[in-house]
Amino acid sequence: MHINIFKRKELKENNSKPLILVTNDDGIHAPGLKALTELARKLGDVVVVAPDEGRSGMSHAITIKYPLRLNKIKDEENLAIYSCSGHPADCVKLAVNQLLDRKPDLLISGINHGSNSSISVVYSGTMAAAIEGGLHGIPSIGFSITDFSSRPDFSASCFFGEQIIMNTLSDGLPEGVCLNVNFPKLPQKDIKGIRICRQAKGLWIEEFDKRVDPHRREYFWLTGYFDNYEPDNEDTDEWALKHNYISVVPVRVDFSDTKAMAKLRSLYAKNGI
Amino acid sequence: MHINIFKRKELKENNSKPLILVTNDDGIHAPGLKALTELARKLGDVVVVAPDEGRSGMSHAITIKYPLRLNKIKDEENLAIYSCSGHPADCVKLAVNQLLDRKPDLLISGINHGSNSSISVVYSGTMAAAIEGGLHGIPSIGFSITDFSSRPDFSASCFFGEQIIMNTLSDGLPEGVCLNVNFPKLPQKDIKGIRICRQAKGLWIEEFDKRVDPHRREYFWLTGYFDNYEPDNEDTDEWALKHNYISVVPVRVDFSDTKAMAKLRSLYAKNGI
Repeated sequence: MHINIFKRKELKENNSKPLILVTNDDGIHAPGLKALTELARKLGDVVVVAPDEGRSGMSHAITIKYPLRLNKIKDEENLAIYSCSGHPADCVKLAVNQLLDRKPDLLISGINHGSNSSISVVYSGTMAAAIEGGLHGIPSIGFSITDFSSRPDFSASCFFGEQIIMNTLSDGLPEGVCLNVNFPKLPQKDIKGIRICRQAKGLWIEEFDKRVDPHRREYFWLTGYFDNYEPDNEDTDEWALKHNYISVVPVRVDFSDTKAMAKLRSLYAKNGI
Repeated sequence: MHINIFKRKELKENNSKPLILVTNDDGIHAPGLKALTELARKLGDVVVVAPDEGRSGMSHAITIKYPLRLNKIKDEENLAIYSCSGHPADCVKLAVNQLLDRKPDLLISGINHGSNSSISVVYSGTMAAAIEGGLHGIPSIGFSITDFSSRPDFSASCFFGEQIIMNTLSDGLPEGVCLNVNFPKLPQKDIKGIRICRQAKGLWIEEFDKRVDPHRREYFWLTGYFDNYEPDNEDTDEWALKHNYISVVPVRVDFSDTKAMAKLRSLYAKNGI
Protein backbone atom coordinates (compact mmCIF):
# COMPACT_ATOMS: atom_id res chain seq x y z
CA MET A 1 0.00 0.00 0.00
CA HIS A 2 1.26 3.44 -0.93
CA ILE A 3 0.50 6.34 1.36
CA ASN A 4 1.72 9.60 -0.02
CA ILE A 5 2.56 12.56 2.11
CA PHE A 6 -0.33 14.81 3.02
CA LYS A 7 -0.90 17.15 0.14
CA ARG A 8 -1.55 20.82 0.59
CA LYS A 9 -4.28 21.95 -1.77
CA GLU A 10 -3.78 24.67 -4.35
CA LEU A 11 -6.47 26.68 -2.63
CA LYS A 12 -3.98 27.56 0.07
CA GLU A 13 -1.64 29.04 -2.49
CA ASN A 14 -4.08 31.00 -4.63
CA ASN A 15 -6.45 31.87 -1.79
CA SER A 16 -9.55 31.07 -3.86
CA LYS A 17 -12.58 29.51 -2.22
CA PRO A 18 -12.59 25.75 -2.22
CA LEU A 19 -15.13 23.89 -4.35
CA ILE A 20 -17.09 21.50 -2.14
CA LEU A 21 -19.26 18.68 -3.47
CA VAL A 22 -22.01 17.62 -1.04
CA THR A 23 -24.05 14.42 -1.26
CA ASN A 24 -25.77 11.85 0.96
CA ASP A 25 -27.88 8.70 0.86
CA ASP A 26 -30.93 9.90 2.80
CA GLY A 27 -31.96 11.96 -0.21
CA ILE A 28 -32.29 15.56 -1.27
CA HIS A 29 -34.86 16.45 1.41
CA ALA A 30 -32.98 15.08 4.44
CA PRO A 31 -32.23 17.52 7.27
CA GLY A 32 -28.74 16.01 7.55
CA LEU A 33 -27.98 17.12 3.98
CA LYS A 34 -29.27 20.61 4.74
CA ALA A 35 -27.07 20.87 7.84
CA LEU A 36 -24.00 19.75 5.90
CA THR A 37 -24.78 22.11 2.99
CA GLU A 38 -25.04 25.08 5.36
CA LEU A 39 -21.75 24.14 6.96
CA ALA A 40 -20.13 23.81 3.53
CA ARG A 41 -21.39 27.26 2.46
CA LYS A 42 -19.41 28.84 5.28
CA LEU A 43 -16.27 27.29 3.84
CA GLY A 44 -16.50 27.42 0.07
CA ASP A 45 -18.46 27.26 -3.18
CA VAL A 46 -20.93 24.41 -2.92
CA VAL A 47 -22.48 21.99 -5.39
CA VAL A 48 -25.01 19.54 -3.98
CA VAL A 49 -25.88 16.40 -5.96
CA ALA A 50 -28.04 14.06 -3.91
CA PRO A 51 -30.48 11.23 -4.62
CA ASP A 52 -34.06 12.29 -5.34
CA GLU A 53 -35.28 9.95 -2.62
CA GLY A 54 -33.79 8.05 0.33
CA ARG A 55 -31.27 5.41 -0.68
CA SER A 56 -30.20 4.03 2.69
CA GLY A 57 -28.43 0.68 2.59
CA MET A 58 -27.67 0.95 -1.12
CA SER A 59 -23.94 0.54 -0.51
CA HIS A 60 -21.77 1.18 -3.58
CA ALA A 61 -24.58 0.39 -6.05
CA ILE A 62 -24.34 1.98 -9.49
CA THR A 63 -27.10 2.30 -12.07
CA ILE A 64 -26.42 0.25 -15.18
CA LYS A 65 -29.84 -0.91 -16.37
CA TYR A 66 -31.52 2.51 -16.39
CA PRO A 67 -30.46 5.96 -17.54
CA LEU A 68 -29.80 8.65 -14.96
CA ARG A 69 -31.52 12.01 -14.63
CA LEU A 70 -30.31 15.23 -13.06
CA ASN A 71 -32.77 17.88 -11.92
CA LYS A 72 -31.50 21.40 -11.13
CA ILE A 73 -33.25 22.67 -8.01
CA LYS A 74 -31.24 25.77 -7.16
CA ASP A 75 -28.54 27.81 -8.86
CA GLU A 76 -27.52 30.73 -6.66
CA GLU A 77 -24.18 32.41 -6.28
CA ASN A 78 -21.90 29.89 -4.58
CA LEU A 79 -24.62 27.26 -4.30
CA ALA A 80 -26.03 24.88 -6.90
CA ILE A 81 -28.33 22.02 -5.93
CA TYR A 82 -29.25 19.02 -8.10
CA SER A 83 -31.29 15.94 -7.38
CA CYS A 84 -30.31 12.74 -9.15
CA SER A 85 -32.35 9.65 -9.97
CA GLY A 86 -29.45 7.35 -9.05
CA HIS A 87 -27.67 6.01 -6.02
CA PRO A 88 -25.06 7.95 -4.00
CA ALA A 89 -22.13 6.59 -6.06
CA ASP A 90 -23.99 7.61 -9.24
CA CYS A 91 -24.36 11.14 -7.83
CA VAL A 92 -20.61 11.41 -7.35
CA LYS A 93 -19.79 9.99 -10.77
CA LEU A 94 -22.25 12.32 -12.52
CA ALA A 95 -21.09 15.37 -10.57
CA VAL A 96 -17.40 14.74 -11.25
CA ASN A 97 -17.82 13.73 -14.89
CA GLN A 98 -20.70 15.88 -16.12
CA LEU A 99 -21.47 18.83 -13.87
CA LEU A 100 -18.22 20.19 -12.52
CA ASP A 101 -15.60 21.88 -14.66
CA ARG A 102 -12.84 21.07 -12.16
CA LYS A 103 -12.13 18.48 -9.53
CA PRO A 104 -13.70 19.46 -6.18
CA ASP A 105 -11.32 20.31 -3.36
CA LEU A 106 -13.50 18.31 -1.01
CA LEU A 107 -16.40 15.86 -1.05
CA ILE A 108 -18.60 15.57 2.03
CA SER A 109 -21.42 13.05 2.37
CA GLY A 110 -24.19 13.04 4.96
CA ILE A 111 -24.88 13.89 7.65
CA ASN A 112 -26.39 10.42 7.71
CA HIS A 113 -29.33 9.81 10.01
CA GLY A 114 -27.95 6.75 11.80
CA SER A 115 -24.43 5.52 12.47
CA ASN A 116 -22.12 3.96 9.90
CA SER A 117 -19.55 2.54 12.28
CA SER A 118 -18.01 -0.94 12.23
CA ILE A 119 -19.30 -3.26 9.48
CA SER A 120 -22.12 -0.84 8.57
CA VAL A 121 -19.56 0.86 6.32
CA VAL A 122 -20.13 -2.02 3.89
CA TYR A 123 -23.87 -1.31 3.52
CA SER A 124 -23.72 2.48 3.69
CA GLY A 125 -24.54 4.67 0.71
CA THR A 126 -23.16 7.66 2.60
CA MET A 127 -19.78 6.03 2.85
CA ALA A 128 -19.93 4.65 -0.70
CA ALA A 129 -20.18 8.25 -1.93
CA ALA A 130 -17.13 9.20 0.13
CA ILE A 131 -15.25 6.14 -1.09
CA GLU A 132 -16.15 6.97 -4.70
CA GLY A 133 -14.82 10.49 -4.15
CA GLY A 134 -11.61 9.08 -2.72
CA LEU A 135 -11.21 6.79 -5.74
CA HIS A 136 -11.37 9.92 -7.92
CA GLY A 137 -8.62 11.54 -5.89
CA ILE A 138 -10.91 13.95 -4.03
CA PRO A 139 -10.36 14.33 -0.27
CA SER A 140 -13.65 12.85 0.92
CA ILE A 141 -15.45 12.48 4.23
CA GLY A 142 -18.63 10.63 5.17
CA PHE A 143 -20.44 12.00 8.23
CA SER A 144 -23.04 10.12 10.26
CA ILE A 145 -24.74 10.61 13.62
CA THR A 146 -25.92 7.82 15.92
CA ASP A 147 -29.47 9.12 15.72
CA PHE A 148 -31.96 7.50 13.35
CA SER A 149 -34.69 10.06 13.95
CA SER A 150 -35.93 12.35 11.20
CA ARG A 151 -34.87 15.52 13.09
CA PRO A 152 -31.56 14.99 14.92
CA ASP A 153 -29.80 17.93 16.56
CA PHE A 154 -26.82 18.50 14.25
CA SER A 155 -25.30 21.47 16.09
CA ALA A 156 -22.51 19.53 17.82
CA SER A 157 -21.87 17.52 14.63
CA CYS A 158 -21.44 20.75 12.67
CA PHE A 159 -19.15 22.27 15.30
CA PHE A 160 -16.74 19.33 15.28
CA GLY A 161 -17.37 18.54 11.62
CA GLU A 162 -16.06 21.98 10.69
CA GLN A 163 -12.79 21.24 12.45
CA ILE A 164 -12.39 17.96 10.58
CA ILE A 165 -13.28 19.61 7.27
CA MET A 166 -10.91 22.55 7.82
CA ASN A 167 -8.12 20.15 8.65
CA THR A 168 -8.83 18.08 5.54
CA LEU A 169 -8.99 21.17 3.31
CA SER A 170 -5.64 22.42 4.59
CA ASP A 171 -3.73 19.15 4.84
CA GLY A 172 -5.51 16.77 2.48
CA LEU A 173 -5.68 13.04 3.08
CA PRO A 174 -3.30 10.18 2.30
CA GLU A 175 -3.77 9.02 -1.30
CA GLY A 176 -6.60 6.52 -1.64
CA VAL A 177 -7.95 7.22 1.86
CA CYS A 178 -11.28 8.79 2.84
CA LEU A 179 -12.71 9.35 6.31
CA ASN A 180 -15.64 7.67 8.03
CA VAL A 181 -16.74 10.11 10.75
CA ASN A 182 -19.44 9.17 13.25
CA PHE A 183 -20.87 11.59 15.81
CA PRO A 184 -22.43 10.41 19.07
CA LYS A 185 -25.97 11.66 19.76
CA LEU A 186 -24.92 14.16 22.41
CA PRO A 187 -24.86 17.89 23.07
CA GLN A 188 -21.54 19.57 22.34
CA LYS A 189 -20.55 19.92 26.01
CA ASP A 190 -20.81 16.15 26.55
CA ILE A 191 -18.61 15.17 23.59
CA LYS A 192 -15.16 14.29 24.88
CA GLY A 193 -13.30 14.87 21.62
CA ILE A 194 -12.23 13.21 18.36
CA ARG A 195 -10.58 9.79 18.22
CA ILE A 196 -8.83 8.26 15.20
CA CYS A 197 -10.05 4.65 15.20
CA ARG A 198 -10.20 1.45 13.27
CA GLN A 199 -13.46 -0.23 12.23
CA ALA A 200 -14.66 -2.52 15.06
CA LYS A 201 -15.17 -6.16 14.19
CA GLY A 202 -18.85 -7.04 14.38
CA LEU A 203 -21.90 -8.24 12.51
CA TRP A 204 -25.55 -7.38 12.06
CA ILE A 205 -27.58 -10.28 13.40
CA GLU A 206 -30.64 -10.54 11.19
CA GLU A 207 -34.04 -11.26 12.59
CA PHE A 208 -36.40 -11.13 9.63
CA ASP A 209 -39.94 -10.15 10.51
CA LYS A 210 -42.08 -12.68 8.62
CA ARG A 211 -45.61 -11.51 7.78
CA VAL A 212 -48.51 -12.55 5.57
CA ASP A 213 -50.06 -10.07 3.13
CA PRO A 214 -53.83 -9.68 2.48
CA HIS A 215 -53.44 -12.17 -0.39
CA ARG A 216 -51.99 -14.78 2.00
CA ARG A 217 -48.51 -14.56 0.59
CA GLU A 218 -45.47 -14.41 2.89
CA TYR A 219 -43.13 -11.46 2.97
CA PHE A 220 -40.11 -10.54 5.06
CA TRP A 221 -38.90 -7.30 6.61
CA LEU A 222 -35.18 -7.04 7.24
CA THR A 223 -34.47 -6.13 10.85
CA GLY A 224 -31.83 -7.07 13.41
CA TYR A 225 -29.29 -5.85 15.91
CA PHE A 226 -25.57 -5.19 15.87
CA ASP A 227 -23.23 -7.61 17.63
CA ASN A 228 -19.90 -5.98 18.54
CA TYR A 229 -17.21 -8.68 18.63
CA GLU A 230 -14.74 -6.51 20.52
CA PRO A 231 -16.57 -4.09 22.86
CA ASP A 232 -13.53 -3.55 25.10
CA ASN A 233 -11.02 -2.57 22.42
CA GLU A 234 -10.33 1.13 22.84
CA ASP A 235 -8.94 1.67 19.34
CA THR A 236 -12.28 0.88 17.67
CA ASP A 237 -14.99 3.23 16.42
CA GLU A 238 -17.67 1.47 18.47
CA TRP A 239 -15.70 2.00 21.68
CA ALA A 240 -15.18 5.69 20.88
CA LEU A 241 -18.88 6.31 20.21
CA LYS A 242 -19.96 4.40 23.31
CA HIS A 243 -17.59 6.51 25.39
CA ASN A 244 -18.84 9.84 24.00
CA TYR A 245 -16.09 10.46 21.45
CA ILE A 246 -16.41 11.24 17.75
CA SER A 247 -14.90 8.36 15.75
CA VAL A 248 -12.78 9.03 12.66
CA VAL A 249 -11.77 5.93 10.68
CA PRO A 250 -9.40 6.35 7.71
CA VAL A 251 -10.93 4.08 5.06
CA ARG A 252 -9.11 2.40 2.17
CA VAL A 253 -10.81 0.10 -0.31
CA ASP A 254 -8.19 -2.55 -0.88
CA PHE A 255 -9.93 -5.80 -0.02
CA SER A 256 -6.81 -7.95 -0.56
CA ASP A 257 -5.70 -9.86 2.53
CA THR A 258 -1.94 -10.24 2.12
CA LYS A 259 -1.53 -12.68 5.02
CA ALA A 260 -4.21 -14.92 3.55
CA MET A 261 -2.44 -14.70 0.18
CA ALA A 262 0.67 -16.30 1.67
CA LYS A 263 -1.38 -19.01 3.42
CA LEU A 264 -3.35 -19.85 0.30
CA ARG A 265 -0.23 -19.95 -1.87
CA SER A 266 1.40 -22.56 0.34
CA LEU A 267 -1.84 -24.54 0.64
CA TYR A 268 -2.47 -24.55 -3.12
CA ALA A 269 1.14 -25.54 -3.75
CA LYS A 270 0.81 -28.42 -1.28
CA ASN A 271 -2.43 -29.57 -2.91
CA GLY A 272 -0.96 -29.23 -6.40
CA ILE A 273 -3.56 -26.84 -7.81
CA MET B 1 -6.12 -8.80 11.93
CA HIS B 2 -6.77 -12.33 13.12
CA ILE B 3 -6.29 -15.17 10.73
CA ASN B 4 -7.14 -18.50 12.23
CA ILE B 5 -5.67 -21.73 11.03
CA PHE B 6 -7.47 -23.30 8.14
CA LYS B 7 -10.41 -25.20 9.54
CA ARG B 8 -11.37 -28.66 8.42
CA LYS B 9 -15.12 -28.92 8.06
CA GLU B 10 -17.25 -31.40 9.99
CA LEU B 11 -18.27 -32.95 6.71
CA LYS B 12 -14.89 -34.60 6.48
CA GLU B 13 -15.46 -36.31 9.81
CA ASN B 14 -19.03 -37.49 9.38
CA ASN B 15 -18.78 -38.07 5.64
CA SER B 16 -22.16 -36.41 4.98
CA LYS B 17 -22.66 -34.38 1.84
CA PRO B 18 -21.82 -30.71 2.20
CA LEU B 19 -24.63 -28.15 2.07
CA ILE B 20 -23.87 -25.60 -0.64
CA LEU B 21 -25.66 -22.27 -0.99
CA VAL B 22 -25.55 -20.86 -4.54
CA THR B 23 -26.38 -17.30 -5.53
CA ASN B 24 -25.42 -14.63 -8.06
CA ASP B 25 -26.21 -11.09 -9.19
CA ASP B 26 -27.16 -11.77 -12.81
CA GLY B 27 -30.43 -13.25 -11.62
CA ILE B 28 -32.19 -16.60 -11.45
CA HIS B 29 -32.21 -17.13 -15.23
CA ALA B 30 -28.52 -16.50 -15.89
CA PRO B 31 -26.54 -19.28 -17.59
CA GLY B 32 -23.67 -18.61 -15.16
CA LEU B 33 -25.92 -19.54 -12.23
CA LYS B 34 -27.01 -22.70 -14.01
CA ALA B 35 -23.40 -23.74 -14.65
CA LEU B 36 -22.45 -23.13 -11.01
CA THR B 37 -25.54 -25.00 -9.75
CA GLU B 38 -24.69 -28.03 -11.88
CA LEU B 39 -21.15 -28.00 -10.58
CA ALA B 40 -22.42 -27.70 -6.99
CA ARG B 41 -24.77 -30.69 -7.45
CA LYS B 42 -21.77 -32.91 -8.18
CA LEU B 43 -20.34 -31.97 -4.81
CA GLY B 44 -23.21 -31.69 -2.32
CA ASP B 45 -26.78 -30.80 -1.43
CA VAL B 46 -27.63 -27.52 -3.09
CA VAL B 47 -29.90 -24.60 -2.22
CA VAL B 48 -30.06 -21.79 -4.78
CA VAL B 49 -31.38 -18.37 -3.69
CA ALA B 50 -30.88 -15.83 -6.45
CA PRO B 51 -32.39 -12.47 -7.40
CA ASP B 52 -35.54 -12.67 -9.52
CA GLU B 53 -33.93 -10.37 -12.07
CA GLY B 54 -30.44 -9.12 -12.94
CA ARG B 55 -28.87 -7.00 -10.19
CA SER B 56 -25.47 -6.21 -11.67
CA GLY B 57 -23.62 -3.34 -10.03
CA MET B 58 -25.79 -3.42 -6.92
CA SER B 59 -22.77 -3.88 -4.68
CA HIS B 60 -23.61 -4.71 -1.05
CA ALA B 61 -27.08 -3.09 -1.23
CA ILE B 62 -29.68 -4.36 1.22
CA THR B 63 -33.44 -3.85 1.03
CA ILE B 64 -34.74 -1.71 3.89
CA LYS B 65 -37.63 0.26 2.41
CA TYR B 66 -39.52 -2.68 0.94
CA PRO B 67 -40.39 -6.18 2.17
CA LEU B 68 -38.70 -9.16 0.57
CA ARG B 69 -40.36 -12.09 -1.19
CA LEU B 70 -39.12 -15.62 -1.74
CA ASN B 71 -40.54 -17.78 -4.53
CA LYS B 72 -39.90 -21.53 -4.51
CA ILE B 73 -39.14 -22.67 -8.05
CA LYS B 74 -37.87 -26.20 -7.53
CA ASP B 75 -37.69 -28.61 -4.60
CA GLU B 76 -36.10 -31.87 -5.71
CA GLU B 77 -33.94 -34.27 -3.76
CA ASN B 78 -30.64 -32.46 -3.12
CA LEU B 79 -31.72 -29.34 -5.00
CA ALA B 80 -33.99 -26.49 -3.94
CA ILE B 81 -34.23 -23.30 -5.99
CA TYR B 82 -35.73 -20.00 -4.84
CA SER B 83 -35.92 -16.62 -6.49
CA CYS B 84 -35.82 -13.56 -4.24
CA SER B 85 -37.10 -10.05 -4.84
CA GLY B 86 -34.01 -8.53 -3.21
CA HIS B 87 -30.36 -7.88 -3.95
CA PRO B 88 -27.60 -10.53 -3.71
CA ALA B 89 -26.79 -9.65 -0.07
CA ASP B 90 -30.51 -9.96 0.75
CA CYS B 91 -30.54 -13.43 -0.83
CA VAL B 92 -27.72 -14.57 1.45
CA LYS B 93 -29.28 -13.04 4.57
CA LEU B 94 -32.69 -14.62 3.85
CA ALA B 95 -31.19 -18.01 3.02
CA VAL B 96 -29.05 -18.14 6.14
CA ASN B 97 -31.67 -16.72 8.50
CA GLN B 98 -34.95 -18.08 7.13
CA LEU B 99 -34.54 -20.97 4.72
CA LEU B 100 -31.68 -23.13 5.96
CA ASP B 101 -31.79 -25.14 9.14
CA ARG B 102 -28.01 -25.18 9.43
CA LYS B 103 -25.10 -23.07 8.31
CA PRO B 104 -24.00 -24.00 4.77
CA ASP B 105 -20.59 -25.60 4.39
CA LEU B 106 -19.96 -23.39 1.40
CA LEU B 107 -21.40 -20.38 -0.42
CA ILE B 108 -20.64 -19.89 -4.10
CA SER B 109 -21.74 -16.86 -6.09
CA GLY B 110 -21.76 -16.48 -9.86
CA ILE B 111 -20.53 -17.38 -12.31
CA ASN B 112 -20.74 -13.69 -13.11
CA HIS B 113 -20.97 -12.67 -16.76
CA GLY B 114 -18.11 -10.17 -16.73
CA SER B 115 -14.99 -9.81 -14.61
CA ASN B 116 -14.92 -8.56 -11.03
CA SER B 117 -11.21 -7.97 -10.74
CA SER B 118 -9.44 -4.91 -9.30
CA ILE B 119 -11.75 -2.12 -8.08
CA SER B 120 -14.82 -3.78 -9.64
CA VAL B 121 -15.05 -5.79 -6.42
CA VAL B 122 -16.53 -2.64 -4.84
CA TYR B 123 -19.46 -2.48 -7.29
CA SER B 124 -20.06 -6.20 -7.65
CA GLY B 125 -23.20 -7.88 -6.34
CA THR B 126 -21.58 -11.26 -6.98
CA MET B 127 -18.76 -10.44 -4.60
CA ALA B 128 -21.09 -8.75 -2.08
CA ALA B 129 -22.92 -12.08 -1.74
CA ALA B 130 -19.61 -13.86 -1.13
CA ILE B 131 -18.54 -11.19 1.35
CA GLU B 132 -21.88 -11.47 3.17
CA GLY B 133 -21.38 -15.23 3.40
CA GLY B 134 -17.89 -14.69 4.78
CA LEU B 135 -19.25 -12.27 7.41
CA HIS B 136 -21.58 -15.07 8.52
CA GLY B 137 -18.64 -17.45 8.90
CA ILE B 138 -19.40 -19.44 5.75
CA PRO B 139 -16.44 -20.28 3.47
CA SER B 140 -17.50 -18.24 0.44
CA ILE B 141 -16.30 -17.78 -3.12
CA GLY B 142 -17.36 -15.38 -5.86
CA PHE B 143 -16.72 -16.59 -9.42
CA SER B 144 -16.64 -14.38 -12.50
CA ILE B 145 -15.51 -14.79 -16.11
CA THR B 146 -14.06 -12.03 -18.29
CA ASP B 147 -16.87 -12.51 -20.79
CA PHE B 148 -19.88 -10.17 -20.72
CA SER B 149 -21.84 -12.12 -23.33
CA SER B 150 -25.12 -13.81 -22.45
CA ARG B 151 -23.78 -17.28 -23.33
CA PRO B 152 -20.15 -17.67 -22.25
CA ASP B 153 -18.44 -21.07 -22.42
CA PHE B 154 -18.18 -22.05 -18.76
CA SER B 155 -16.51 -25.44 -19.25
CA ALA B 156 -12.99 -24.34 -18.30
CA SER B 157 -14.36 -22.24 -15.43
CA CYS B 158 -16.17 -25.28 -14.05
CA PHE B 159 -13.10 -27.50 -14.43
CA PHE B 160 -10.85 -25.17 -12.44
CA GLY B 161 -13.69 -23.92 -10.22
CA GLU B 162 -14.22 -27.47 -8.98
CA GLN B 163 -10.59 -27.63 -7.83
CA ILE B 164 -10.95 -24.36 -5.93
CA ILE B 165 -14.25 -25.47 -4.38
CA MET B 166 -12.91 -28.89 -3.36
CA ASN B 167 -9.91 -27.25 -1.77
CA THR B 168 -12.14 -24.79 0.12
CA LEU B 169 -14.49 -27.56 1.28
CA SER B 170 -11.62 -29.62 2.63
CA ASP B 171 -9.43 -26.90 4.10
CA GLY B 172 -11.79 -23.97 4.72
CA LEU B 173 -10.65 -20.37 4.52
CA PRO B 174 -8.98 -18.04 7.02
CA GLU B 175 -11.57 -16.50 9.33
CA GLY B 176 -13.17 -13.40 7.80
CA VAL B 177 -11.77 -14.11 4.33
CA CYS B 178 -13.67 -14.99 1.15
CA LEU B 179 -12.30 -15.53 -2.35
CA ASN B 180 -12.67 -13.41 -5.47
CA VAL B 181 -12.03 -15.79 -8.39
CA ASN B 182 -11.89 -14.51 -11.97
CA PHE B 183 -11.56 -16.78 -15.00
CA PRO B 184 -10.05 -15.59 -18.29
CA LYS B 185 -12.21 -16.11 -21.38
CA LEU B 186 -10.19 -19.01 -22.74
CA PRO B 187 -10.51 -22.71 -23.50
CA GLN B 188 -9.15 -24.99 -20.79
CA LYS B 189 -5.98 -25.90 -22.69
CA ASP B 190 -4.93 -22.24 -22.91
CA ILE B 191 -5.33 -21.47 -19.20
CA LYS B 192 -1.90 -21.49 -17.58
CA GLY B 193 -3.08 -22.16 -14.01
CA ILE B 194 -4.30 -20.49 -10.84
CA ARG B 195 -2.55 -17.50 -9.25
CA ILE B 196 -3.16 -16.14 -5.75
CA CYS B 197 -3.21 -12.36 -6.28
CA ARG B 198 -3.98 -9.04 -4.74
CA GLN B 199 -6.52 -6.60 -6.15
CA ALA B 200 -4.84 -4.37 -8.77
CA LYS B 201 -5.00 -0.63 -8.18
CA GLY B 202 -7.15 0.99 -10.84
CA LEU B 203 -10.27 3.01 -11.56
CA TRP B 204 -13.23 3.01 -13.91
CA ILE B 205 -13.01 6.14 -16.02
CA GLU B 206 -16.56 7.26 -16.60
CA GLU B 207 -17.74 8.56 -19.93
CA PHE B 208 -21.43 9.22 -19.53
CA ASP B 209 -23.40 8.93 -22.72
CA LYS B 210 -25.63 12.03 -22.67
CA ARG B 211 -28.85 11.75 -24.69
CA VAL B 212 -32.15 13.58 -25.10
CA ASP B 213 -35.45 11.74 -24.69
CA PRO B 214 -38.53 12.25 -26.95
CA HIS B 215 -39.76 14.83 -24.42
CA ARG B 216 -36.52 16.84 -24.84
CA ARG B 217 -35.22 16.01 -21.41
CA GLU B 218 -31.59 14.99 -20.90
CA TYR B 219 -30.60 11.61 -19.56
CA PHE B 220 -27.28 9.88 -19.00
CA TRP B 221 -26.09 6.31 -19.52
CA LEU B 222 -23.20 5.20 -17.34
CA THR B 223 -20.36 3.84 -19.46
CA GLY B 224 -16.58 3.94 -19.30
CA TYR B 225 -13.35 1.99 -19.39
CA PHE B 226 -11.03 0.52 -16.80
CA ASP B 227 -7.68 2.21 -16.16
CA ASN B 228 -5.16 -0.19 -14.59
CA TYR B 229 -2.68 1.84 -12.50
CA GLU B 230 -0.17 -0.98 -12.28
CA PRO B 231 -0.27 -3.14 -15.43
CA ASP B 232 3.23 -4.53 -14.90
CA ASN B 233 2.81 -5.80 -11.34
CA GLU B 234 2.78 -9.58 -11.50
CA ASP B 235 1.12 -10.10 -8.11
CA THR B 236 -2.14 -8.44 -9.23
CA ASP B 237 -5.36 -10.02 -10.48
CA GLU B 238 -5.33 -7.90 -13.64
CA TRP B 239 -1.85 -9.14 -14.57
CA ALA B 240 -2.87 -12.76 -13.96
CA LEU B 241 -5.96 -12.50 -16.18
CA LYS B 242 -4.08 -10.70 -18.94
CA HIS B 243 -1.48 -13.44 -18.92
CA ASN B 244 -4.03 -16.28 -19.16
CA TYR B 245 -4.12 -17.24 -15.48
CA ILE B 246 -7.11 -17.59 -13.18
CA SER B 247 -6.90 -14.95 -10.44
CA VAL B 248 -7.78 -15.79 -6.83
CA VAL B 249 -7.84 -12.81 -4.44
CA PRO B 250 -8.43 -13.47 -0.72
CA VAL B 251 -10.84 -10.68 0.27
CA ARG B 252 -11.29 -9.19 3.73
CA VAL B 253 -13.70 -6.35 4.50
CA ASP B 254 -11.76 -4.32 6.99
CA PHE B 255 -11.58 -0.86 5.46
CA SER B 256 -9.41 0.60 8.23
CA ASP B 257 -6.06 1.94 7.05
CA THR B 258 -3.74 1.52 10.02
CA LYS B 259 -0.88 3.52 8.48
CA ALA B 260 -3.24 6.42 7.81
CA MET B 261 -4.48 6.16 11.42
CA ALA B 262 -0.99 6.88 12.71
CA LYS B 263 -0.52 9.79 10.29
CA LEU B 264 -3.87 11.33 11.15
CA ARG B 265 -3.28 10.96 14.88
CA SER B 266 -0.05 12.93 14.71
CA LEU B 267 -1.58 15.53 12.40
CA TYR B 268 -4.66 16.04 14.60
CA ALA B 269 -2.44 16.27 17.69
CA LYS B 270 -0.28 18.90 15.97
CA ASN B 271 -3.36 20.89 14.94
CA GLY B 272 -4.91 20.56 18.39
CA ILE B 273 -8.18 18.92 17.34
